Amino acid sequence: MSQRIANGFLGDNYPRNMWWVAARADEITTTPMARWILEMPVVLYRTEDGKPVALDDRCPHRWAPLSEGRVDGDQIVCPYHGMRFGPDGRCALVPTQTKVPPDAHITGYPLRESGAFVWIWMGDPDEIDNNEPPVDLGYTANPDWSVVLGYYDVACNWVLIRENVLDLTHIPHLHAKTFRQNDWDTIPKVAIDGDVITYRQDFDPAPLSPLFCHAMGFDEDQPVARSQIGTMPSLAVSFSDWNVTDPDPDPGARSEFLMRGCHIVTPGLRGRTHYYWGAAFDIADVPADAIETSRRNVTEAFDEDKHLLERMQAQLSQDPRQDQSTEVGLAADGAGLRVRQVLHRKLEAESRTL
Amino acid sequence: MSQRIANGFLGDNYPRNMWWVAARADEITTTPMARWILEMPVVLYRTEDGKPVALDDRCPHRWAPLSEGRVDGDQIVCPYHGMRFGPDGRCALVPTQTKVPPDAHITGYPLRESGAFVWIWMGDPDEIDNNEPPVDLGYTANPDWSVVLGYYDVACNWVLIRENVLDLTHIPHLHAKTFRQNDWDTIPKVAIDGDVITYRQDFDPAPLSPLFCHAMGFDEDQPVARSQIGTMPSLAVSFSDWNVTDPDPDPGARSEFLMRGCHIVTPGLRGRTHYYWGAAFDIADVPADAIETSRRNVTEAFDEDKHLLERMQAQLSQDPRQDQSTEVGLAADGAGLRVRQVLHRKLEAESRTL
Amino acid sequence: MSQRIANGFLGDNYPRNMWWVAARADEITTTPMARWILEMPVVLYRTEDGKPVALDDRCPHRWAPLSEGRVDGDQIVCPYHGMRFGPDGRCALVPTQTKVPPDAHITGYPLRESGAFVWIWMGDPDEIDNNEPPVDLGYTANPDWSVVLGYYDVACNWVLIRENVLDLTHIPHLHAKTFRQNDWDTIPKVAIDGDVITYRQDFDPAPLSPLFCHAMGFDEDQPVARSQIGTMPSLAVSFSDWNVTDPDPDPGARSEFLMRGCHIVTPGLRGRTHYYWGAAFDIADVPADAIETSRRNVTEAFDEDKHLLERMQAQLSQDPRQDQSTEVGLAADGAGLRVRQVLHRKLEAESRTL
Repeated sequence: MSQRIANGFLGDNYPRNMWWVAARADEITTTPMARWILEMPVVLYRTEDGKPVALDDRCPHRWAPLSEGRVDGDQIVCPYHGMRFGPDGRCALVPTQTKVPPDAHITGYPLRESGAFVWIWMGDPDEIDNNEPPVDLGYTANPDWSVVLGYYDVACNWVLIRENVLDLTHIPHLHAKTFRQNDWDTIPKVAIDGDVITYRQDFDPAPLSPLFCHAMGFDEDQPVARSQIGTMPSLAVSFSDWNVTDPDPDPGARSEFLMRGCHIVTPGLRGRTHYYWGAAFDIADVPADAIETSRRNVTEAFDEDKHLLERMQAQLSQDPRQDQSTEVGLAADGAGLRVRQVLHRKLEAESRTL
Repeated sequence: MSQRIANGFLGDNYPRNMWWVAARADEITTTPMARWILEMPVVLYRTEDGKPVALDDRCPHRWAPLSEGRVDGDQIVCPYHGMRFGPDGRCALVPTQTKVPPDAHITGYPLRESGAFVWIWMGDPDEIDNNEPPVDLGYTANPDWSVVLGYYDVACNWVLIRENVLDLTHIPHLHAKTFRQNDWDTIPKVAIDGDVITYRQDFDPAPLSPLFCHAMGFDEDQPVARSQIGTMPSLAVSFSDWNVTDPDPDPGARSEFLMRGCHIVTPGLRGRTHYYWGAAFDIADVPADAIETSRRNVTEAFDEDKHLLERMQAQLSQDPRQDQSTEVGLAADGAGLRVRQVLHRKLEAESRTL
Repeated sequence: MSQRIANGFLGDNYPRNMWWVAARADEITTTPMARWILEMPVVLYRTEDGKPVALDDRCPHRWAPLSEGRVDGDQIVCPYHGMRFGPDGRCALVPTQTKVPPDAHITGYPLRESGAFVWIWMGDPDEIDNNEPPVDLGYTANPDWSVVLGYYDVACNWVLIRENVLDLTHIPHLHAKTFRQNDWDTIPKVAIDGDVITYRQDFDPAPLSPLFCHAMGFDEDQPVARSQIGTMPSLAVSFSDWNVTDPDPDPGARSEFLMRGCHIVTPGLRGRTHYYWGAAFDIADVPADAIETSRRNVTEAFDEDKHLLERMQAQLSQDPRQDQSTEVGLAADGAGLRVRQVLHRKLEAESRTL
């Protein structure tokens, strides 16, 4: 069965009328930060009273990047000739003249903070209310959870990562020596409801991956039952819930645990993706050394994804066939194919196609 | 007020029928030098009797760069098969045959030495007499002046530098901590006569920039009056005269000083510019340590320009809007706008447009 | 005389319906090797029983490079989801399902081992029998010869190397200080028979190049007679025979020697070439130190070619004239021009032109 649903990963294939994650909340400070988002230069900063601001990173005068300037109060100051812009993008001052030209303004982008992250809307402002609100990421800043966060700038299109994290049957192969969750050799049940994709798969007791067992307090060889539940509420973020049951808990001890994996992708420059990951345990105070073990082990495993996906992107970019050929479909592609269906629907709603 | 006079800085926007600076005179020796000028490969060398030569850096046989070869007498020898070319570009010898093919010649470019620099004409030879002669730079080799020279290979289009040096109202912003000439907060009077642009601005006594005060013998906090006069006699070069008056000279001591800044730009490869700067004091023997202080301080300030202009060029190259949008105009743009007018006129004379 | 036979060196100018060298035999092992050949990604590996295999380096499922995976028996395993492919390119296993999709296969390329090298056919399989078989390179693994082999990844088109090694009149110029065979100042007799080019040139006794004299047992200043005979049996490989005669051998000692130079080119990525060279002496056991001296001296000389050819390719790629102008022809171009004639004929047979 050949697969003809393109994912457009060598071109511009991101819907604009949706919320994407612009940055982690703690990255945005009173020192301006430059970031390419949806192939546009954006400057992010925080005003004196803590409000995050996103503006076109291009002064309307001579197009200098405002991110090379500085923040003063709630304004950003252009590094070149000192023009000042407020959070709404309107110029407030031109040092060499008393009147500000009426057309001296730049585009501002709506932001929404949610937990440890800040969402950005870069599409048609009139479409905000016609689309899903940003996904709630409040748990990532909730003290009832112990959260590990990480970031990669990956030299591949965002869809490659999205498809990767929605089909975990690659774990026994790409991550045989890191995840060591090599029982993942059958395919999950996949469903779609509107644009929300879910999958579910239940596993017999087996040792839990060293990426997560330490934080839950299990030894590396201790068998536990797992129910894996994935959700993609938006193309921008998906969750991977590891519901773990201790079949033989100590008397009175807790037997049910959750690790909520989180995969956030944001298109950057052409062929590059901001990839934020989270591993959150529903335990208030996981010891620091267990957290660090998780961080180290997750990073070692995700390095394997980054390496392979970047090789895929680079190779296809140089291959004269580019992405113009069919793919062989497998039964395990269920979630990945639905990603493409959602993607095509959203592009169609913007009168675009791949 | 939106600005719609394009400067074409992402493309080929240099007039060909004019003199550009090819190199500093001391760069051209009997060892051939390769240089991209107006996006063409040029080889520069000096004959035994000291005459500078510029030829197409491409052997007409198999297109090897002659700059990889060597100079012998007044000829340059191709590194590949040993063909020899004279200063007029005609082949003088093919080692493996007795007759030289009649079409074995390459383009030679007229050169004119002037002071510390060598000018080149790469346009239509028949147009030389219909255009302005090379600007006289004799003072840069005149012992009555103390001259500091510098060079940058800047990864931006030449017009960005040209506009930068013609509008010094950026000094209090981009160079607040280096130039420290932060009284430059109003706009100069600008005039144009033919293709020659001038500006003039007079300043009340204030401490003179540490870039120049040492060479003139002033302390960093000593107030002096300044009359700033700029001239752009050609798109290839502009001068920035700092006329300084000591309001309280020692009895019998000199009270008037001039620092002549010089900004030479030559397009190289697409998106790259050879930028030569000069700072010349009308004093015969400025002490070496004051010269070195000027060189260090100028370099520190011009590094700031290079960094910003390269960021501007790189960012616009990646921005999907490219340079296809309007710019907001300011009252301080007077000289810069006239640069664009001259540029458009010169291109039009070559039947070209931006 | 202007030369108007293009060699197409800035584009796709390689015939496909011919054998090219894929690799040295010892490079292909049970660890998969990625190589770009004719601008296509190829994975090379050896099965358990030693058979070399070449496959499209792109899994048909999600296009991961198989070269990132591993070999198991005679199969290669995809690094991403563990699909397995046999030497014929057919998928043998999909881990997550019992049936293999019927279209799950990739292109396999015929290989032929010959001496120290492995040939590959990447053109139309139906055309194999209509074209010349791979050139016999058996002598490169024959113990009666002492063989030095080397490899360069050169950032230039293969034709530049092919023309370079077929016209050795560049030796006294480019290699004046390395080859030191500076008597090469006249042109050889060139002939063509079908697509096989030959040249021949006889030299009076002169010291033999330090690249080869040591292995033949001559001092660097000892004059020997030489008959140079070149053959290009295929665009992929040419030989350069140095037939050397000792005019004054010791009584009973050998007086005739042969050094067979070998120049193998294979197009890789656009503008890059795999270049294998060989220097083979018809002497069974040349001492190791003489072999090392040859290797070092050849490498020093060929570094000069690599440097110049890469400069030529890079410069022409950036020159706005590109390769769209004529070349001046010399009498010494005989073999090089015939290379272009063969090239044009072969492309025409594939209904292609330059």
